[in-house]
Formats: sequence, C-alpha cells, structure tokens
Amino acid sequence: MFTVCVRDHLMIAHSFRGEVFGPAQRLHGATYVVDVELKRPSLDADGVVVDIGRATKVLRQVLADLDYRNLDEEPAFVGRNTTTEFLTKTIFDRMADKIATGDLGEAGATLTGMRVVLHESHVAWAAYEGGLES
Amino acid sequence: MFTVCVRDHLMIAHSFRGEVFGPAQRLHGATYVVDVELKRPSLDADGVVVDIGRATKVLRQVLADLDYRNLDEEPAFVGRNTTTEFLTKTIFDRMADKIATGDLGEAGATLTGMRVVLHESHVAWAAYEGGLES
Amino acid sequence: MFTVCVRDHLMIAHSFRGEVFGPAQRLHGATYVVDVELKRPSLDADGVVVDIGRATKVLRQVLADLDYRNLDEEPAFVGRNTTTEFLTKTIFDRMADKIATGDLGEAGATLTGMRVVLHESHVAWAAYEGGLES
Amino acid sequence: MFTVCVRDHLMIAHSFRGEVFGPAQRLHGATYVVDVELKRPSLDADGVVVDIGRATKVLRQVLADLDYRNLDEEPAFVGRNTTTEFLTKTIFDRMADKIATGDLGEAGATLTGMRVVLHESHVAWAAYEGGLES
Amino acid sequence: MFTVCVRDHLMIAHSFRGEVFGPAQRLHGATYVVDVELKRPSLDADGVVVDIGRATKVLRQVLADLDYRNLDEEPAFVGRNTTTEFLTKTIFDRMADKIATGDLGEAGATLTGMRVVLHESHVAWAAYEGGLES
Amino acid sequence: MFTVCVRDHLMIAHSFRGEVFGPAQRLHGATYVVDVELKRPSLDADGVVVDIGRATKVLRQVLADLDYRNLDEEPAFVGRNTTTEFLTKTIFDRMADKIATGDLGEAGATLTGMRVVLHESHVAWAAYEGGLES
Repeated sequence: MFTVCVRDHLMIAHSFRGEVFGPAQRLHGATYVVDVELKRPSLDADGVVVDIGRATKVLRQVLADLDYRNLDEEPAFVGRNTTTEFLTKTIFDRMADKIATGDLGEAGATLTGMRVVLHESHVAWAAYEGGLES
Repeated sequence: MFTVCVRDHLMIAHSFRGEVFGPAQRLHGATYVVDVELKRPSLDADGVVVDIGRATKVLRQVLADLDYRNLDEEPAFVGRNTTTEFLTKTIFDRMADKIATGDLGEAGATLTGMRVVLHESHVAWAAYEGGLES
Repeated sequence: MFTVCVRDHLMIAHSFRGEVFGPAQRLHGATYVVDVELKRPSLDADGVVVDIGRATKVLRQVLADLDYRNLDEEPAFVGRNTTTEFLTKTIFDRMADKIATGDLGEAGATLTGMRVVLHESHVAWAAYEGGLES
Repeated sequence: MFTVCVRDHLMIAHSFRGEVFGPAQRLHGATYVVDVELKRPSLDADGVVVDIGRATKVLRQVLADLDYRNLDEEPAFVGRNTTTEFLTKTIFDRMADKIATGDLGEAGATLTGMRVVLHESHVAWAAYEGGLES
Repeated sequence: MFTVCVRDHLMIAHSFRGEVFGPAQRLHGATYVVDVELKRPSLDADGVVVDIGRATKVLRQVLADLDYRNLDEEPAFVGRNTTTEFLTKTIFDRMADKIATGDLGEAGATLTGMRVVLHESHVAWAAYEGGLES
Repeated sequence: MFTVCVRDHLMIAHSFRGEVFGPAQRLHGATYVVDVELKRPSLDADGVVVDIGRATKVLRQVLADLDYRNLDEEPAFVGRNTTTEFLTKTIFDRMADKIATGDLGEAGATLTGMRVVLHESHVAWAAYEGGLES
C-alpha cells in the first residue's frame, strides 16, 4: 500500500463543556499542524498516488473554512465539543467530500483510505483513519 | 478509527548480553521519548477518545517505576535484555494493566488497541502494537 | 557561554487589531511551544547552569497564568496585540521577575542572559533575547 | 506486533515527465530522509526484532546505489518518473531482496512486514508498506 | 532583541567541483528547508517585528527563482560551487535586496539583522548571519 | 558569519551527586543527540566552511571515546557530575583539540567559533559556545 502525506496548519479558538476538561472549559485556542495521508494500492501512469500540489490546495480549502475562527460560534459545531479528536473526523469528512466530487481528479477516485492527524502540541496529537469509497 | 497520543520520556541505564550488541554490552544508557497511542472506533459523549490529562498521568506513573534506574538491577528484568523493543512491550503491558483496572475511567474500557513507541535517538525507534480487551 | 533550555507549551485564544493581520483580526487561537534558554558563563559547584527541574517548574508557573485563556480579556494586555513576538517579551519579563526574586535559587542570581522562543506552528516562531542583571 | 525503525538519507537529482508536475518537469533534486520500519510478531532470543546495526548497514548499502546520482540516467529507471512514491517501492524491493538473501541474518527470515517512508520536505512524505515472505 | 522566523523549502539539482566533495562531484540534488530569521530591537505599533505573511511571500519569491532548477546551469552561479553554505549567503543577499527596496514595508527598514538557515538533511544544516543597514 | 552544523548521538550511563538532582542521583542514562556548529566569517576556495564529511568523522571519533560507557567509571571525570552542561564543554574541548592539531585540515585553522548542543530529551537541551584560536 502506498501513502502520500501533505501538511498544513490552522489556528482556532474554542472552549469545551464538561468537568473532565478542567481549565480547557475556558475559551482558549490551538494551533493544529494537520497531516493528511492518502492511500492507494498502486500508482497511476504518472507514478504518483495523487498530484501532491492538488492535494495541498484541497487541504488548504478545507482548512480555510476553519482557520482563524472561534469554533464555538460555527453553526456546524453547535452543541459539540470541538476536541482534537472531533476535528480529525471533521477534516476527514470534508476532505472525503471533496475527493468524492473530483477535486483530486481521477486519481482521487481510486484512493482506498485516508488518515488525518492533528498535532496540538509537542506532546499530544490525535488521528482519524478510515476507508474511502472508490 | 480514532487515535489519541500522549508523549513523555524516561532516562535509564542498562547493558546487553550477546555478541550481536558489540559495545552495547557495556553498561550504558538511553533517553527514551515515549509515545502512547490509544485507539477507539468512536468518541465518548464528551467528544474524546480518553481524557488526555488522565492518560498523561497514567503514563507518568508507568514510567516513574522505570525512570532514573539501572534496569540491570530491576528484579522484573532478571535474565532479560532490556532492549528498546523489549521495553515497548513492558510499557504496553503496564499501561494495559492500568487501563484494565480502570485508571483511564469508563472510556478506557472501550479502547480497542494501543501502540507504544520508544524513540531512542534521532535515527532509531521501536514500537509494539496490540489489541486491548474491551 | 553555557546555555540550558527547558520546553513547555500553552494554548490561548486572542484576536488582533490592525488591517495588516487580515483574518487574524477574528478571534482565533494558538498553541505556543515555549523554549526558555538560560545562559551563564560558568557552571556551579553541582556542574549545572541551574536546576533544570526547578527551571521547568518556574516556567510552568509563568505559563499557568496565561494558559487556557482568552488573552483579549486579560487586564494586563488591554489595548495591546498579543502577537507571538509580544508574548515572547511577556514571558521573558515574568521569568526575569521570578529569577530576580530567587525562584531559581542562588544559581539564578548569576545568570547573565535569557532567550524565550515561542513556536506557533511548524513554519513560524518568534523569540526575545536579553540580558539578566546579576 | 513489534516494529524497529532505522533512519538514513539520500540526495538525488531527477526530472519528471507529465504536465501535472509543473516546474518539477525541470531537472531538480531532493534530499530524502528514509525510514525503514521492520515488523515481526515476536522478539528473538536476544530480545530484538533484528540487529539494528546490521539493518542500518543494509539500508546504507541500498541507498549507496542511488545516492549522489541523477536518477534520469540510471538504467533501472528508464521511462519511469522517479517520484517519491516510486522510490519508496524501489527501496522496499531492494531491502526485501537483501533480507531474502540473508543480509539481516536469521532474524530477517522471520520478519513479516516492512514500511519504507521517504520524507521529501517538512511538509510532504510518501510511504510503501507490504508483507515479507518468511 | 526580537526575532521572527518563517520557513519554506526548495528542491534543486547541482554538482560540485573539487576532490574534497567525493561522490557529491556527481550531479545530485537536495531539498533545503529554509528558515529566515528577522531581527529588530523593538516591535512596531502593531506589536510585530514584520508582517509575517508578507515575510513569507517575499521568501517564496526569492526561493521561486531557485526552486526546481539545476543550479549548474544558472548564469548567476557560473564557476561557483553552490554548496549549502554558499546558498545561505545567496538567499541572505536576495532577501536583503528586497528588504532594502521596501518589500517588507516600513518595518523592514528598521530590521537590524537577519539569519538564513538551510537544513539539508536530518543531520546537517548551514547558516549565514549578518547585519542589515537601517 | 557562516555556520555549518553536523549531528550525531551517544548513549551513556551516569549518576549525579547532590540533593538537587533528586532521583537522578541513582545510576541512570541518557541518549544525547549532539550538534556541533562550526563558525567562520568567510568560505574557502571550495565554497565551504569545512569539509562536512570530515567534520562528521571527527565528531564520531570524539563521541566514540564516550559512547556506550558508564561515565562514573571514566578516569577523566572522577569527582565530577557529568551533567548535560558539563558534557557540552567536554565535547567542545575535545573537538577544539582535534581542530588545533589539524584534523579538519587547513579550513579548521580559520574557524573562529564553535557551539556544541546536547539534546537530552524532547523537552531539554544544553549548549556550550566559545571562540576558537585561529
């Protein structure tokens, strides 16, 4: 299995509800360094998994809708804790939608899996990995 | 599948038996930067895999029993080479025991897998990955 | 010249005023991975620049007053943009105050310089470096 | 499952054919930081996956045949785009050949999988993972 | 003294003349991860050293003239070994020219120093540091 | 000013005397990832600060005398705490000796400064920087 990974980052504010979160119940924020890993069992005629430049652009588009925002005020997240784990799935789903509608070209249609990793600091990260319908 | 990872480190002395180890047969030591990855197919009601603060504390407890020690003198390791690989399994097992006895709370009981990575330098690491009974 | 560096991090929300900041004028946030470098021309009788454990604790105290907060609402920062650069100086000054009042012990009194680095992402950081009165 | 990883790097020149590559159609080059991860369900009598020193030497041999070269002129790659993805498989195959002929010793014969990662910059990497016949 | 650093990268081919270079006399290549550190004794009215977005764009422009090229064929480098060290100075000079002509705005005119670091692998980097006329 | 940096690592055991060290008074160990930065105001005729391959070999020689050893039993360190800070100076002095006796060739004689950094974990490092007689 081949994998290609591209990296970008986003900077958001949010707060969490639930005693388990302690001081993180206060409005605070995070830089998330985001890795998107795209998987395919074979390479295309050009010798790539997908066009890495195109993957980088699509990731930027997905992150631009979240970047420099207070996630507590985003309609899409009403009533949800936008934890690092939760956001890995959000970004996974939004990337998957764009792949399904052809934003990564024909190669995108033959991707079989994706993993999204959000690094929140030098000592913690979260990831979501799942299959892609092809 | 969701994953959350927490990082800490330990600093130990040890020596290895066996010609394959060359100069590492002498008493020497290592800093191990330790990543513990916890896996679960879905998030809990708070939106997390486990309480990351709690996971960090449990990892610290596990490492505290090994930290700043000469592993050659630890009764638990008599007759064993405490290689990086061996220690990944040691830490995996000790973390699994704590999870089984509820140290990560209810969320811990629904974890399905764990991976422990020990980085021994900028050019080498070892890992052990296995399932967790839930 | 000897240097010792300890690392920790903080997670805050804030917004900036000024067109130059573009989308960062909106409420957003950041993880800052913080390095504090302490400088001294010679080592003490124990062979250290300062007690690294003590330095780590003092840094945690300084960061705890900022961590998990919306800096826009901190009285100390009224009318200021809490940029990465600005915060390097804030943390420098607060560390310097604690060193001056003896929080790093006698060794602290002989430190001659300090550098504070805040890493805001994998592609940007800021630092403030200055002398310490000893 | 146990994994051991060793790291080295290579520096090559190449060019790509295909409009998708844009400016990378020109002769350019790359540093690839290479991670080879070796997998085995149990440890040998010495407590290791494989002799890490030996694995490092075999990786160096494999990389030496590619290092400091213009891959456009290598007979093995005629008519192929030597993309990062393509090279992960090249190095995987060459490592697998050496393992099959005993270059990692008896332990090598019981390895069940391998993953080769090539980091091409701070924002992109590719990997190939596959089984090893044992 | 305040410092702000932005990071980008470039991928080039080149060869070196001189026996000291051994196999690097052959045509090969490198990824250079480039850090540009900009220094100023005080912050401007916005609370920054320079507009970090603007600095990132200027760095990209400087790198674009070198990126995805065979430096052996660049007229600017005829008869020169484009070593990592040499390129740190090239990028320093080109950044300094752009700063002098106002590409970083008014803040650029008050910068007092700059450091350019090129990371060529996980085990080697080079830097050039110098003053800026203001 | 130009700088070139090469990286290697060593793995040692040791213990410290003094209550300030707490559990580190026990025999333990460390991996030190070692960076040696060599400084020179101009490049030589080949376009380098020093031959990077040669610098790497000299660093390896210096580290080989310390690597895989219990520093408590080294005659050179009797009565001394071999702290990270202390070892930065040890390695600085041994590198300086080799440079003075010509191990880095003619270029070595024109080096004006050196900085040795020892990374002991992902959250702490120490450095020693000084001039070189040329």
